[in-house]
Amino acid sequence: MDNNRLCVGLIGLGRQGHNHYNNLLTLSQIIKLKYVCDLKVDETWEREYSNIPVVTKDYFDVLNDPEVDAVVIVTSTNTHAQIIKDAALAGKHIFCEKPFSMDTNEDEIKDVLRIVKEKNVKLQMGFQRRVDPQFREIHENIISGKIGEPQIIKSTSRDPFVLDKELIKRIGTLPYDFTIHDLDLVRYMMNSNISEVYAKGGTLIDPTLKEIGDVDTIALVLQFENGTFGMIDNSRQAVYGYDQRIEVFGSEGMSKAENVSDSTVELFNKDNTKVANPLPIFTERFHQAYINEIVSFVDSVVNDKPVIADGVDAVMAERAAQAVEKSIKSGKSEKVDTVFEI
Amino acid sequence: MDNNRLCVGLIGLGRQGHNHYNNLLTLSQIIKLKYVCDLKVDETWEREYSNIPVVTKDYFDVLNDPEVDAVVIVTSTNTHAQIIKDAALAGKHIFCEKPFSMDTNEDEIKDVLRIVKEKNVKLQMGFQRRVDPQFREIHENIISGKIGEPQIIKSTSRDPFVLDKELIKRIGTLPYDFTIHDLDLVRYMMNSNISEVYAKGGTLIDPTLKEIGDVDTIALVLQFENGTFGMIDNSRQAVYGYDQRIEVFGSEGMSKAENVSDSTVELFNKDNTKVANPLPIFTERFHQAYINEIVSFVDSVVNDKPVIADGVDAVMAERAAQAVEKSIKSGKSEKVDTVFEI
Amino acid sequence: MDNNRLCVGLIGLGRQGHNHYNNLLTLSQIIKLKYVCDLKVDETWEREYSNIPVVTKDYFDVLNDPEVDAVVIVTSTNTHAQIIKDAALAGKHIFCEKPFSMDTNEDEIKDVLRIVKEKNVKLQMGFQRRVDPQFREIHENIISGKIGEPQIIKSTSRDPFVLDKELIKRIGTLPYDFTIHDLDLVRYMMNSNISEVYAKGGTLIDPTLKEIGDVDTIALVLQFENGTFGMIDNSRQAVYGYDQRIEVFGSEGMSKAENVSDSTVELFNKDNTKVANPLPIFTERFHQAYINEIVSFVDSVVNDKPVIADGVDAVMAERAAQAVEKSIKSGKSEKVDTVFEI
Amino acid sequence: MDNNRLCVGLIGLGRQGHNHYNNLLTLSQIIKLKYVCDLKVDETWEREYSNIPVVTKDYFDVLNDPEVDAVVIVTSTNTHAQIIKDAALAGKHIFCEKPFSMDTNEDEIKDVLRIVKEKNVKLQMGFQRRVDPQFREIHENIISGKIGEPQIIKSTSRDPFVLDKELIKRIGTLPYDFTIHDLDLVRYMMNSNISEVYAKGGTLIDPTLKEIGDVDTIALVLQFENGTFGMIDNSRQAVYGYDQRIEVFGSEGMSKAENVSDSTVELFNKDNTKVANPLPIFTERFHQAYINEIVSFVDSVVNDKPVIADGVDAVMAERAAQAVEKSIKSGKSEKVDTVFEI
Repeated sequence: MDNNRLCVGLIGLGRQGHNHYNNLLTLSQIIKLKYVCDLKVDETWEREYSNIPVVTKDYFDVLNDPEVDAVVIVTSTNTHAQIIKDAALAGKHIFCEKPFSMDTNEDEIKDVLRIVKEKNVKLQMGFQRRVDPQFREIHENIISGKIGEPQIIKSTSRDPFVLDKELIKRIGTLPYDFTIHDLDLVRYMMNSNISEVYAKGGTLIDPTLKEIGDVDTIALVLQFENGTFGMIDNSRQAVYGYDQRIEVFGSEGMSKAENVSDSTVELFNKDNTKVANPLPIFTERFHQAYINEIVSFVDSVVNDKPVIADGVDAVMAERAAQAVEKSIKSGKSEKVDTVFEI
Repeated sequence: MDNNRLCVGLIGLGRQGHNHYNNLLTLSQIIKLKYVCDLKVDETWEREYSNIPVVTKDYFDVLNDPEVDAVVIVTSTNTHAQIIKDAALAGKHIFCEKPFSMDTNEDEIKDVLRIVKEKNVKLQMGFQRRVDPQFREIHENIISGKIGEPQIIKSTSRDPFVLDKELIKRIGTLPYDFTIHDLDLVRYMMNSNISEVYAKGGTLIDPTLKEIGDVDTIALVLQFENGTFGMIDNSRQAVYGYDQRIEVFGSEGMSKAENVSDSTVELFNKDNTKVANPLPIFTERFHQAYINEIVSFVDSVVNDKPVIADGVDAVMAERAAQAVEKSIKSGKSEKVDTVFEI
Repeated sequence: MDNNRLCVGLIGLGRQGHNHYNNLLTLSQIIKLKYVCDLKVDETWEREYSNIPVVTKDYFDVLNDPEVDAVVIVTSTNTHAQIIKDAALAGKHIFCEKPFSMDTNEDEIKDVLRIVKEKNVKLQMGFQRRVDPQFREIHENIISGKIGEPQIIKSTSRDPFVLDKELIKRIGTLPYDFTIHDLDLVRYMMNSNISEVYAKGGTLIDPTLKEIGDVDTIALVLQFENGTFGMIDNSRQAVYGYDQRIEVFGSEGMSKAENVSDSTVELFNKDNTKVANPLPIFTERFHQAYINEIVSFVDSVVNDKPVIADGVDAVMAERAAQAVEKSIKSGKSEKVDTVFEI
Repeated sequence: MDNNRLCVGLIGLGRQGHNHYNNLLTLSQIIKLKYVCDLKVDETWEREYSNIPVVTKDYFDVLNDPEVDAVVIVTSTNTHAQIIKDAALAGKHIFCEKPFSMDTNEDEIKDVLRIVKEKNVKLQMGFQRRVDPQFREIHENIISGKIGEPQIIKSTSRDPFVLDKELIKRIGTLPYDFTIHDLDLVRYMMNSNISEVYAKGGTLIDPTLKEIGDVDTIALVLQFENGTFGMIDNSRQAVYGYDQRIEVFGSEGMSKAENVSDSTVELFNKDNTKVANPLPIFTERFHQAYINEIVSFVDSVVNDKPVIADGVDAVMAERAAQAVEKSIKSGKSEKVDTVFEI
C-alpha cells in the first residue's frame, strides 16, 4: 500500500482489458497501476503506456513484485483458472473479469478456490451488474423490504448487434456470454439459488449461428430454491440500443429499472413525440458499474470485507448457464445442483 | 334493425352482465336494448329496468322475438354452449362474454360451431383485450411493420387482490380465468398458434389456494408455430393496482404498452417524486375495451365482416390454458394441438 | 326534483351547447333534461331531440315551468347577463357556461349578482378547469400542504389551431377567450386575487389577426395579492395537440400536471423512441372536467353547498383578462382592482 | 503545444476553480496542466498539487512562460477584466469562467475586448449551459428546423438551497449570479438579442435577503429583437433538487429538456409510484457541460474556430441581468441596449 493506494497489476489488455485500464486510471486516488501485462506486448507498448511503471509480457513479473497488492485479470477465459491459482499462491488479491470457462471442470475450480481460501486472499468475479447504480437501487428496494417478499423477478438483456462468429467461438455461446449475467443478477437479487431452468432458444435473427451451435434468442423460466420464479429473455440484436431492464415483483410492491439514456429531451411534432433511445452499448450502459466493481474490490481488500461476487457465485452462475444450454437442446426443464463444497 | 340500430337481448345479469348492461346503454345510437334476461328476475326488476322494454327469466322469450337481431350472453360459463346453440338455431347473432367452460368437451363445441356456421350467424367471443386501445396500438405497430418481424412477446397480468375461493371455484382456476386472456392476446398479436407451453405455478401469496387446486402465481414460456417465443407472468395480487402490460420485440424495433393511470400529476418532494399508480381494477382499465368489443360486434353484424374473435379463437385459447394447467402439474412442457376442424 | 333527479332546461345549443347536451344525457341518473331551448329551433328539431320532453325557442317556457329546478345557459356571451337575471327572478338555479361578456359593464353585473343573491339561487360559472381531474389533484396537493407554501404558479395553454376570425370576433380576443381560463385557474390554485399583470402579446403565427385587434401569442407575469407570482403563456396553434399544463412551486416541493394522452404505448426504433402526443382538442382533454362541473353544480343545488366558481370569480377573471389586454397595448404592467361589493 | 496537447495554466482555485481543476485532469489527453495559480498558495500546496509542474501565487509566472498556450481564469469576478487584459497582452488564449463583474464599466470591457481582438487570441466565457448535452440537443432541434420558427422560450432554474449571505455579497445578487445564465441561454437558443425585460422579484423564502438588496424568487417576461418572447423563473430553494429545464415552442413543434436524474428505477407501492428526484446540485447536473466547454475551447484554439460564447455574449447577458435588477426595483419593463461596438 503506497499512500493508502492499492498497488495493482493489470493482466490482459484486449477489448475489455482496455475498458478496465481506463477505469483504473480514473481511480488514481485509490489505485496505483504499476503493471500492464499482455502476451502481445512489443516495443510500441512502452510508448503507449509511458505513464505505467512496468509493461511486461510475463504475468509472473507482476506476481513476483512484493509491492503489488492485487491483480486484475482480463485474459482469455480459458486461462483464468491458472492465473488465479498462481496469483493466490503469490498472495495477491484477485479481481477476475470473467467467470471460469465453460470448459473448466469443477475439480479444477475447487482446487483454485481452495488455494484462494488457504492463502486468505480476496477473489472477486466480474459480475458488474450487481453494482450498477440502477440495479443496486433495485437491490436496496428489496433488502429494505420496500416490495415485501419478492415473488417474481424478470430480466431482459438485448445486445445491439450480433457479434462476429469467430468472436462468439472464443467468448462462448449466448448462455455463457450473456444469459450468465442475468442468471447471476436474478440469483443475487432474490438471495436464493437457482434450482431449475426451462429455456427456449432459437436463431430468429441469424440462422447461420446454428453452424457454431449457438442461438440468438432465449426465453426462459426458472425456479429458485425458495420457491419463487424468474424469467429471462435475451436477444443478440435490438436495433434501438442496448436493452437492459429488470423488474422484481413482491408481496408489497414492485420495482423496475428502465433503460438508461443520456437525454431527457422530448420533441413534440405533428405526428408524435420523440424521446431518446437507450444507451447504445454495454461499455456506456455499465460504465459506472465497471468503476463501482473496482471500487468495491479495493474496499474489500483494504477493509477486509466480503467481495461483492465470489468464486462460488461464479460456479452457481456457470451451472445455471449450463442448464440453460442443456434445456434448449433437451426441450426439458433441467435441475441445477446448488451444493458446492470447497 | 330499427332505425339502423341493432336490436339486442342481454342474457345474464351478474357482475360482468351489469358491466355490459351499462355499456349497451351508452351505445344507444347503434343498439336498441330490448330484453334483459336473467334467472333471478322477480317483480323488483321491472322497476329497476323500467327503461328496458322486456324483462324476462326465459331466454327463449328473447330468441323467439323476430325483432331481435342479436344476443349478448353473460351467463355462467357452463351454460354458454347450450345458449349459443339455441340462439344460432333461432338465427340470432351472438356475442358471448366468456369462452367455453373448461368442462365443455370439444365434440360439443364442434357441434355448436357447426350450427353457428350453418345458420350463418356471427359468433364473437369476449376477448376484449384485442380491442383495448393500448393493445390495439401495439397490434397496429406490428401489422404495419413498425417493429419488423416479431420475435418475442411478453404479457404481464396481475390482479389487485385474491378473489374469494368460492368465486374461483365458479369461474375457474388461474389459467382458465386469467392466463387464458394473455394466451389469446399473444396468439392474436403474433398471428400464430401456440404450439407448446412450459409453466411454473405456485401459491406464493395464499397457500390455502392449494385446497381448491389453484395457484396464485404463474410464470411461463411458450412457443408459437412460427418458431417465435412468448412469456407470460400472472399474479393474483399486485398491491399497487391492476397491472396489465405487453411488449413485442422484433427485428426492427420494440413496442410496449405501459400501465394506464388516470393522472399525469407529478409531486416532487425532498425525498422523491411521486406519480400515480396504475388504474385499480379491470372494469376501469378495460372500460373502453368492453365498449369497443360491442361496437366491433355490431359492425361485424351490420356490415357482414369477420368478428374480432371467433369460436376457433376460443378453442385455441382454451387448449393453451389446459396446457398451462397440465404443465404446472407435470413439471414438463406440454404440446398444444392446433388442428381444429368443424 | 323528480326521483331525486334535478330537472334541467338547457338554453343554447351551439357548439359548446351540444357538448353540454351530450354530457347532461350521460348524467341521466342525477339529471332529468326536460327542455332544450334555442333561437334556431325549427320543425326538424323535434325529431332530432325526440328524447327530450320539450323543445322550444323561448327560454321563458323553461323559466315558467315550476318543475324546472335549474337552467344551463350556453347562449352567446352577450346574452348571459339578461338570461341569468331572468332565471334568478324565476327562482331557478343557474349554471352559466361562459363568464360575462367583455362588453357587459360592471354595474349590470352587480345588478345581476344582487338578484341572484336576493333570490337565493345558486349561480355557477363554467370554469371547468377547476374540476379537471389533473388540476384537481394539483389543487389537493396544495391545500393538503404537500408542496408547502406556494410561491410560483405557471400555466401553459395552447390551442391546436387558429380559430376563424369571424368566430374570434364573436367569442372574444385571446385574453377573453383563452387567457381568462388560465387567470381563473391560477387565482383559484393560489387562493389569492391577482393584483397586477404584465403581458406581452404578438401575432407570431397569423399577422392578419391584427386586423381584428387580436394576438395569437401571449407571455405574461402576474402578481397575487399575497405577494406570490404567476406566469402564463398562450398560443393559438400548437401543431402537436392541445397543450394544457400547470406547475405549482412551493416551499416544500413542486407539483405539475403534464399533458394527457390516450396512449401509454412506446415504439422503439433505430433512430428514436416514439410516444403519443397530447390529446388533440379541448372537448377531449376536458371531457371529464365538463362532466365534473355539472356533477358539482347538482351537488351544490341538492345539498346547498357553495358552487365551485361563482359570479365574483367570473368578475375577477374578467378584470384580469382586461388587464392583460390593456398591458399588451400599453407596454406597462397594469393593476387589477380586487374589491367587489355587490 | 506538447504532443498536440494544449499547455494550460489555471488561475484561481476556489470552489469553482477546483471543479475546473478536476475536469482539466480528466482531459489529460488534450490538455497539459502546467500551472496552478492562486493568491492563497503556501507550502502545503506543493504537496497537494505534486502532480502539477508549477504551483504559484503570481499569475505573471504563467503569462511569462512561452510554453503556456492558454489560461483558465476562475478568480473573483472583479479581477477578470485585468487578468484577461494581461493574458491577451501576453498572447495567451483565454477561458474565463464568469462574465465580467457587475461593477466593471463598459468602457473597461471595451478596452479589454479590443486588446483581445488586436492580439488575435481566443476569449471564451464560461456559459457552460450552451454545451450541456440536454440543452445542446434542444439547440440542435431548433437549428435543424425540427420545431419550425421558435416563438416562445421558457427557462426554469432553481437552486437547491439559499446561499450564505456573505457568499452572495461576493458573487452577486440573484440576477447576476443566476438569472444571467438563463438570459444567456435563451438568447443563444433564440439567436436574437434580448431587447426588453419585465421582472418581478421577491423574498418569498428568506425575507432577510432584503438586507443585502437581494431577492430569492424571480419571474420575468422578456422580448427578443426578432419579436419573440421569453419567460424565466428562478428560485433560490427547491427542496427536491437542482431544477433546470427549458422549453422552446415553435411553429412546427415544441422541444423541452426535463430534469436529469441518475436513476430510472420506479417503485410501485400501495399508495403511489416513486421515481428519482432531479440531480441535487449544479456540479453534478452540469458535470458534462463543464467538461464540454473546455473541450470546445481547446477545439477553438487548436482549429482556430469561433468560441462557443465570446466577450460580446457576456456583455449582452450582463446588460440583460442589469435590466432584470432594474425592472424588479422600478416595477416597469426595461429596455436592453443591444448595440455594442468594440
